[in-house]
Amino acid sequence: MQDFEELSREFLNRFNTSHFPQKPESLYQPAEYFLGLGGKRVRPVMCLMGNELFDEIKPHTWDVATAIELFHNFTLIHDDIMDKAPLRRGMPTLHEKFGHSNALLAGDVMLVVAYDYINKVPQSNIHKIIQLFNSTAKAVCEGQQLDMDFERTPEVSLADYLQMIELKTSVLLAASLKMGAMLGGAGEGNQQHIAAFGRNLGLAFQIQDDYLDAFGDPAKFGKQSGGDIVANKKTYLLCRAMQLASASQQKEMLELLAADSPDKVVRMISIFKSCGVDEESKILMERYLSGAFQHLEDIAVLANRKEPLRQLARFLVQRDY
Amino acid sequence: MQDFEELSREFLNRFNTSHFPQKPESLYQPAEYFLGLGGKRVRPVMCLMGNELFDEIKPHTWDVATAIELFHNFTLIHDDIMDKAPLRRGMPTLHEKFGHSNALLAGDVMLVVAYDYINKVPQSNIHKIIQLFNSTAKAVCEGQQLDMDFERTPEVSLADYLQMIELKTSVLLAASLKMGAMLGGAGEGNQQHIAAFGRNLGLAFQIQDDYLDAFGDPAKFGKQSGGDIVANKKTYLLCRAMQLASASQQKEMLELLAADSPDKVVRMISIFKSCGVDEESKILMERYLSGAFQHLEDIAVLANRKEPLRQLARFLVQRDY
Repeated sequence: MQDFEELSREFLNRFNTSHFPQKPESLYQPAEYFLGLGGKRVRPVMCLMGNELFDEIKPHTWDVATAIELFHNFTLIHDDIMDKAPLRRGMPTLHEKFGHSNALLAGDVMLVVAYDYINKVPQSNIHKIIQLFNSTAKAVCEGQQLDMDFERTPEVSLADYLQMIELKTSVLLAASLKMGAMLGGAGEGNQQHIAAFGRNLGLAFQIQDDYLDAFGDPAKFGKQSGGDIVANKKTYLLCRAMQLASASQQKEMLELLAADSPDKVVRMISIFKSCGVDEESKILMERYLSGAFQHLEDIAVLANRKEPLRQLARFLVQRDY
Repeated sequence: MQDFEELSREFLNRFNTSHFPQKPESLYQPAEYFLGLGGKRVRPVMCLMGNELFDEIKPHTWDVATAIELFHNFTLIHDDIMDKAPLRRGMPTLHEKFGHSNALLAGDVMLVVAYDYINKVPQSNIHKIIQLFNSTAKAVCEGQQLDMDFERTPEVSLADYLQMIELKTSVLLAASLKMGAMLGGAGEGNQQHIAAFGRNLGLAFQIQDDYLDAFGDPAKFGKQSGGDIVANKKTYLLCRAMQLASASQQKEMLELLAADSPDKVVRMISIFKSCGVDEESKILMERYLSGAFQHLEDIAVLANRKEPLRQLARFLVQRDY
């Protein structure tokens, strides 16, 4: 049983190589550049942990983990184009550096190469793995579409918001764990539980992300406070506050959304607090996290094998606000 | 043995159904719209013919044919974005009608759904089919990248041009036939010959396309004459004329490429004729077509089984200029 850091190190050793042909350079160099921007590589490590919970890591689990990370980077490249994002991890996004067309095409080819790695899975498992990989890919596209639709929707219900973050974020975390579990020989029930662990963990993580943007310590979390508010991003805080706010608060929120004012962040945070969505979001996060741990508990393997996954959950969702 | 029209009709009967979930509509409706624009569906029919040359059509060959057509439409959607094309088959392109982000994402999800159909191939063949599908997909991306690179390159060598059209067009025609042949149980040698038939046919077809743009009868071919010349598109005619032209003709061509003038099309066509590239392109087309027929000849099945493929070649490349 290896912990997050060990698996992460071993994955990086294998992943940090060229995944593309040399030529044409104009196609493949942008793809390499983007992978070179780094990242926590959480999803492939979850795939490896999903396998190791049940059995020692199979050779092709490394391939599926690689496919998952390539798929994730493909979505980031295309999302950055759609979101017109200038920076990714402090560096120019792919379309900023190489132009929109090159970025689009580099993303496409990265998805195809992800399927090259999936194609290394032996006959006995390949149909199931592709089915899960594809249904996950479609869900992630659906989540991104809803996220874009919400930009043009003044009021997004909490249910719609939760569905969107589940599709855009949680489904891939769940699938990463489940693919690892499948390859590790887990039974149907255990596969369901590990996927549900990932889904709940993903929801807790995303709500934490929303919370920290408004209420986190910028020094501690390394992000500018209120970035989501400035960008009018639909977050748990905004959707829930819109439900709870008084008529006059709702009016003020809609005004803040319609036109930028210098005190926008301060005023929006003040409404959030007055509606109590800061506390509510902590409660909801805690509920999803408990849900995750319950499903982890229910997996029928020895408790000490689950320690790396517990550690992962604590790494992703911290409780010291 | 069914001819092109019969197979085409039967494929359309199966293909003209919904390939996507209902929701979210904002993601899947654009995808359905694009497929609704129609097309000759040449590639899937080639896949079916490739199978039927060797054995009766297997159920999953219809699935692979569907995957090929979805893949082809995915490339058209993304190419239209990159080329800023306003129209496709006389109708607004996807990004014109639904916006760039929706079109990008609809293309992505169409590629994933193509892999859903590929995933219906039985265990015994799936690895080989995915390998060929993926290497083809990468080649098509490489071809599109070279095509874009060439827009910024004043002089493109003939060899580079031929490599580009092989990657962008021929490789997919070859792979469509070869996948069908593999599923129909063809041996290695026959697979090579049918792929070479498709590759040569694709090159002949593309050079014909270049020829007709400048020298075709607009009434007969339904395309505006000289569209490629207006758009400064690198074609066989342009690349070859640049090699053959005198110093003063080269200078004139570079001037015509650098600035639009009202008599650009007439003057460029006059240079093409003076260099003899109209006649040369017919010779080259004929050479590729003979090459295609030679490989068809070399396939070790009864000659009368090859009639549909001969008919297809005559349909794609006509000799009555």
